[in-house]
Amino acid sequence: MNIGIMAIGDELTGGMTQDTNSSYLAREIHAEGWRISGIHIVGDEGTAIAAALAYLIKISNAVIVMGGLGPTADDITTEAIATAFDLELYTDEAILQRMKELFTAVGLPWSDTNAKQARFPQGADVINNPVGTACGFSLLRDGVPVFVIPGVPREVYRMFPEGVLPRLRKAAGRDNAAPLRKTIKTFGLTEAEVAKRLSDLRAPAGMTVGFYPRFPENHIVLTARNGGDEEGREKLSSLVGWIEERLHPYVFGYDDETLEGVVYALLREKGLTLSVAESCSGGLITDHLTDVPGSSNVLERGVVVYSNRSKMELLGVPAGVIETKGAVSSETAVAMAEGIRALAGTDIGLATTGIAGPTGGTKEKPVGTVFMAITDRDGTVWREFHFRWDRRRNKEMTAHIALELLRRRLTGVDIHGS
Amino acid sequence: MNIGIMAIGDELTGGMTQDTNSSYLAREIHAEGWRISGIHIVGDEGTAIAAALAYLIKISNAVIVMGGLGPTADDITTEAIATAFDLELYTDEAILQRMKELFTAVGLPWSDTNAKQARFPQGADVINNPVGTACGFSLLRDGVPVFVIPGVPREVYRMFPEGVLPRLRKAAGRDNAAPLRKTIKTFGLTEAEVAKRLSDLRAPAGMTVGFYPRFPENHIVLTARNGGDEEGREKLSSLVGWIEERLHPYVFGYDDETLEGVVYALLREKGLTLSVAESCSGGLITDHLTDVPGSSNVLERGVVVYSNRSKMELLGVPAGVIETKGAVSSETAVAMAEGIRALAGTDIGLATTGIAGPTGGTKEKPVGTVFMAITDRDGTVWREFHFRWDRRRNKEMTAHIALELLRRRLTGVDIHGS
Repeated sequence: MNIGIMAIGDELTGGMTQDTNSSYLAREIHAEGWRISGIHIVGDEGTAIAAALAYLIKISNAVIVMGGLGPTADDITTEAIATAFDLELYTDEAILQRMKELFTAVGLPWSDTNAKQARFPQGADVINNPVGTACGFSLLRDGVPVFVIPGVPREVYRMFPEGVLPRLRKAAGRDNAAPLRKTIKTFGLTEAEVAKRLSDLRAPAGMTVGFYPRFPENHIVLTARNGGDEEGREKLSSLVGWIEERLHPYVFGYDDETLEGVVYALLREKGLTLSVAESCSGGLITDHLTDVPGSSNVLERGVVVYSNRSKMELLGVPAGVIETKGAVSSETAVAMAEGIRALAGTDIGLATTGIAGPTGGTKEKPVGTVFMAITDRDGTVWREFHFRWDRRRNKEMTAHIALELLRRRLTGVDIHGS
Repeated sequence: MNIGIMAIGDELTGGMTQDTNSSYLAREIHAEGWRISGIHIVGDEGTAIAAALAYLIKISNAVIVMGGLGPTADDITTEAIATAFDLELYTDEAILQRMKELFTAVGLPWSDTNAKQARFPQGADVINNPVGTACGFSLLRDGVPVFVIPGVPREVYRMFPEGVLPRLRKAAGRDNAAPLRKTIKTFGLTEAEVAKRLSDLRAPAGMTVGFYPRFPENHIVLTARNGGDEEGREKLSSLVGWIEERLHPYVFGYDDETLEGVVYALLREKGLTLSVAESCSGGLITDHLTDVPGSSNVLERGVVVYSNRSKMELLGVPAGVIETKGAVSSETAVAMAEGIRALAGTDIGLATTGIAGPTGGTKEKPVGTVFMAITDRDGTVWREFHFRWDRRRNKEMTAHIALELLRRRLTGVDIHGS
């Protein structure tokens, strides 16, 4: 199947809002093994909508239209499509009634301008909206099904899988079995290195593979379209195993897992507590860790020791170390990690110190030089890295590598500096 | 002028990469006072490229094509366009020579597959690439100029303003004077509240106004197309003044300024130092502050005191306060702010404590309850907030409001809790 996507909205063609829905739909459609014939973005303008729709219908087996189903005057998608297809609009009384009840339930005053959201082109098949007032609809045009849904992302994320996808599968003559999907998440390999390690990967029939760079990670998404049967599950699981072997030890998690979530789970599992001392990462490590609900169970405290005084006072880094080795040195990183562990009385201490940039570098320690140390009852290790990005990306890499260092320490696999 | 945009790449139609270039171009084109006729995204496929291009040429006064100019086999944009327009390709020897020299200079081995980047359709006008090897080109088709540039964002950000925009202005019969632009950045008003306060705003002739929600901020971009002349400058400056008056005191900065950058500049200007104690924001405040180069001049230290023990030990929060009032209370926030200020010996102490969610709420203190306190030589103030988002957004709002609280304190304008 070739599927066309159309996103409608002046806020998109004016650059006010970034269209993220199309990329989401493209991913989902790719996972089904279908192709995108084209993605068109047009403003809230009747003739532009009609022309783009006619074009997409010509080159596609199905078209998905998003946006312009709101209650205000500039939301004209339904009307524009009815005009383009030469169809009358009718009011769905049951939907109108439900909208009025919804308004009463949440205490909003009803206004008759909202009634336009209960109007649909003759012959339309209404698509339910479980999270908003704007229902969608589908129509057949020249044998091509056209699906029209709102453009609000959280509505798209519900209405596409629940309302559109089952109809698309039916149009493709396929069972409405949700495909089985597995996302493998890696960190530490470039996109090119992942591709090289998997260059002889051939997806079996009925399966698709997608590569998704998500800085600083790389994700691999496997989809078995016939996820319902035993054979599909076995094929998927064997492919996951094959890929993991090739990418070991860079795979840190699966599906919705995050690096900080995996680290948290490992600490919980082992009953260990953590404290963090950050200089160049400026709090980003604890920011990530505290994104995990329940992280207060393992993260006793963090400190951001930007000044030399705070490194000495709070963590007991010896003045002599800072004077002779510098605040950015392996010795300082080690003293920081050991200092925070002693201060907080935790099982593990983690520390970073470096030069995030854009200034502050020297010949021996250029911008991007970062030292990290990790200490526990088995001793202390430190690593040195050299990043070459801007200040923000240098911070992001520092925080991500620090968490990965911790993950490797907890799973017994080493990581090397560069 | 109606301008069409086309983005080419299987990584876009497969959902692997989000197209952000089109949104950037749409913003820039809107600022020039022109319209977008449509944005088309297609895969690396010759007939799809040709068909989409023919369509866009029909509905536009100019077309910008991005992507598919790389050296690999799947980069087929130049060839596809030459075929579509029935033009031969030729090699630009000067560009070929420059590419070879560039490879030598950076120590990369030359391969003849790279030579395809020096090939252009007959009659093309080459557009220089100051940051990469893939030059762009422009062609006239049915009286419509077609501009072709690479899709790498950092190349687009240089080649559009330097190579495409001057040619577009010429096509529009306009001077190549860079327009004068001013971005007004606000925080603390919803998009609807900004719109309401500016509902009677009418941009004078030659000026455009754009509204850009950038969670949790709202930006207003003013462009005077004739920025070169005295009158344009005066009109812009008077409109900026008018808007500021309407939006006071929610305007925190302009153009490239960030909230943390503004806070940093105020602290520097007044010669003040800062320390931060974070509980529910988990390090995000210091993360923001340390994004500002030079922030070590004002940020003495930060602590993330997730445990009650660390609040007591490190900041001297009395055990009795935590027991009777709770770790999430105005009393704890005040004790944290005063504690970190005393510990760090800074001019200002800032503190947050709250329930980020998704669990941990009570009837009296539901998820999203956050207390913040700020203390300096003039005393201590605290504020209470109630957020209703997910954990991450609750953290983001906490950090942003904390910085705004600080900005208001430094500029003598109060902020109220909600």
